[in-house]
Amino acid sequence: MSEVALVRRIYDVWKALPTHNPLVQCLTNTVVQGFSANVLLAAGASPAMVDVPGEAGDFAAISSATLINLGTIGTSQQLAIPEAAQSAHHSQTPWVLDPVAVGALKVRTRLAHELLNYRPTVIRGNASEIIALCGGAAARGADSTAQVQDAHGSAIELAKKHKTVVAVSGSADFITDGERHYQCANGHAIQTKVTGSGCALGAGIGACVSVTEDALWGTVAAHAVYGIAAQQAQEVSAGPGTFAANFLDALANVSEDDVERLLAVRQLATDKE
Amino acid sequence: MSEVALVRRIYDVWKALPTHNPLVQCLTNTVVQGFSANVLLAAGASPAMVDVPGEAGDFAAISSATLINLGTIGTSQQLAIPEAAQSAHHSQTPWVLDPVAVGALKVRTRLAHELLNYRPTVIRGNASEIIALCGGAAARGADSTAQVQDAHGSAIELAKKHKTVVAVSGSADFITDGERHYQCANGHAIQTKVTGSGCALGAGIGACVSVTEDALWGTVAAHAVYGIAAQQAQEVSAGPGTFAANFLDALANVSEDDVERLLAVRQLATDKE
Amino acid sequence: MSEVALVRRIYDVWKALPTHNPLVQCLTNTVVQGFSANVLLAAGASPAMVDVPGEAGDFAAISSATLINLGTIGTSQQLAIPEAAQSAHHSQTPWVLDPVAVGALKVRTRLAHELLNYRPTVIRGNASEIIALCGGAAARGADSTAQVQDAHGSAIELAKKHKTVVAVSGSADFITDGERHYQCANGHAIQTKVTGSGCALGAGIGACVSVTEDALWGTVAAHAVYGIAAQQAQEVSAGPGTFAANFLDALANVSEDDVERLLAVRQLATDKE
Repeated sequence: MSEVALVRRIYDVWKALPTHNPLVQCLTNTVVQGFSANVLLAAGASPAMVDVPGEAGDFAAISSATLINLGTIGTSQQLAIPEAAQSAHHSQTPWVLDPVAVGALKVRTRLAHELLNYRPTVIRGNASEIIALCGGAAARGADSTAQVQDAHGSAIELAKKHKTVVAVSGSADFITDGERHYQCANGHAIQTKVTGSGCALGAGIGACVSVTEDALWGTVAAHAVYGIAAQQAQEVSAGPGTFAANFLDALANVSEDDVERLLAVRQLATDKE
Repeated sequence: MSEVALVRRIYDVWKALPTHNPLVQCLTNTVVQGFSANVLLAAGASPAMVDVPGEAGDFAAISSATLINLGTIGTSQQLAIPEAAQSAHHSQTPWVLDPVAVGALKVRTRLAHELLNYRPTVIRGNASEIIALCGGAAARGADSTAQVQDAHGSAIELAKKHKTVVAVSGSADFITDGERHYQCANGHAIQTKVTGSGCALGAGIGACVSVTEDALWGTVAAHAVYGIAAQQAQEVSAGPGTFAANFLDALANVSEDDVERLLAVRQLATDKE
Repeated sequence: MSEVALVRRIYDVWKALPTHNPLVQCLTNTVVQGFSANVLLAAGASPAMVDVPGEAGDFAAISSATLINLGTIGTSQQLAIPEAAQSAHHSQTPWVLDPVAVGALKVRTRLAHELLNYRPTVIRGNASEIIALCGGAAARGADSTAQVQDAHGSAIELAKKHKTVVAVSGSADFITDGERHYQCANGHAIQTKVTGSGCALGAGIGACVSVTEDALWGTVAAHAVYGIAAQQAQEVSAGPGTFAANFLDALANVSEDDVERLLAVRQLATDKE
């Protein structure tokens, strides 16, 4: 694909968000709910943090997309999460699984493996989480101790086995559906200093996937534009506090010119490149 | 009432907040707890998010006001909320009900109707929520699919039936106690891009109602000053991220001059105007 | 100790954070989780809000430090908190207890006293909380109704009885291990207008205590640098909203020069000075 076509394809996904205003249900951790909702609003989507047992399933059936993030699964969310995943699966609502700290901790590891039965549309995590979900060794907490390239094999294996898109976040993200592999080098290290940067991206992926036929492209677009906004915000910020505010501003204002100027996405030719 | 008297009456409520420093208990959704607390602090009130079963009732009895917002009613809050409402009712603590997404979802709809028995002092919602609480059709999520004017009739009916003040938020808010009807056109569209804007207003209403004899006026004052601060913040913000920070600054610094210059409140002569 | 030695000792603790990148587990209230995580990230630590029963204990055993804050103890956290405290105690993970609103409310008062059996490394609270935990009268909510100096005696008694460090926050903080007493006058009144200022300091204390042998010094360092960053941020902020963002920036950028220029820590000669 030409550079021009790539920019156009990615920006087409992004600009569809305010047009379609997708309703994105988030069952996510309590640390990042506010920031995730603000990311969705800035992007033109409509967040709804419906994570109550007895409601979560009904709501997944009518949502444009559902995000399930395992960061802080209290007893109430532990009931609501499988309910939502099952309903999303049956209703063909696209849904994103973010298996935070999977492998390192018992309750969420059991839950993450159960959720794979409901066929997530996209699985998003850091390298350690993707490796652990594929059966490898886990990290100590929510931060990755592995590099993105270490997880390429696991990501492809997971994608093929579960017929899903897998995105590995890191300094250069790796996104694959098992056949096609993309690298996205957009973003900035300061994002690791703002809690919920990765988790809110999961919500953004849900929004993007809901407005495109091809989940791989929705996932690539979300990573790229999110990273571009981060790069723009970083230039005008004195530290992580002002960055978080400027990032939301940038996300709300990303233009096709910005994408053309800053896009750093490329297709990888082989599985392990 | 003259324009001057209107400004004075509204600003009198607002400036009473730092003087009386009301203690506002919030049983609210986890998405907006931080923002709501910061709104109360900026206004001069004292927030306390006491939503633990076995404590919530005792605390409602000693609070200046209690806010009950049904956004994310996990199993723990489902126990604490009726406990707090019942205690507020018995202790004559003014309390505000924000029936988020009522009608659209089962658990909260049942709970909202149960709570009406404890006579909320104010009910605040968007048009869809007020219509649904009055028995009409619901929206798809937390966002309204109806216009404020569509809800005038339902608001008046609810207010009369439950002897309460009802506030319908939207581009021009409608506030009624069943007899007197006010419209407030303060505010800015960018508020819809910041999660918790409406929910935090619910907390602000609680604070204002606790420092005035007339709950209608407390509710009008909260809407007006909140909207004025939003207008001021919007002028110096590049997007929703910096707006949220600037809004808290503006709220902490609203002067009587600002109110005089920007107030857009008027009484409506008839029920359906 | 000379002024130069004091500055050096405090800055040595602070600069060890990005070097060691301690993993700080937080079982804290849902109002302040995001802000607390951002404070830890700005300081160079790694937050992990692992508060799920069945995981919290395992995680405390591998964490660098654990914070337990009783602000919003839902049914799920009520199970996870003693699990984490017991495990931290057995694993010799340093842990910080923040007994929010203890004395005023039943459930947390019972829990706080149970937790003292697991020997917190540091207890941090406002004057009313420290007095109440020591058996005195409680405040009405999360805000203190007593002055720091009123709590000196209770702080020293608690510290001696439980062989712990006790920190009383206020306009001038008091920090004691029962034998050595320090006062820290860094900080600014605007911090009381940002929710979670005190709670996030609790997380910062955990981080600092994990990188020094002497818990008293870790606690003093956390208070001093946190307060210095607040003073710097206040100078460039128009209100509490921009202050919160600027504070995180300042915290990420505090230099030894800043500490030297602004440090306001002194040893108190007698128990009651």
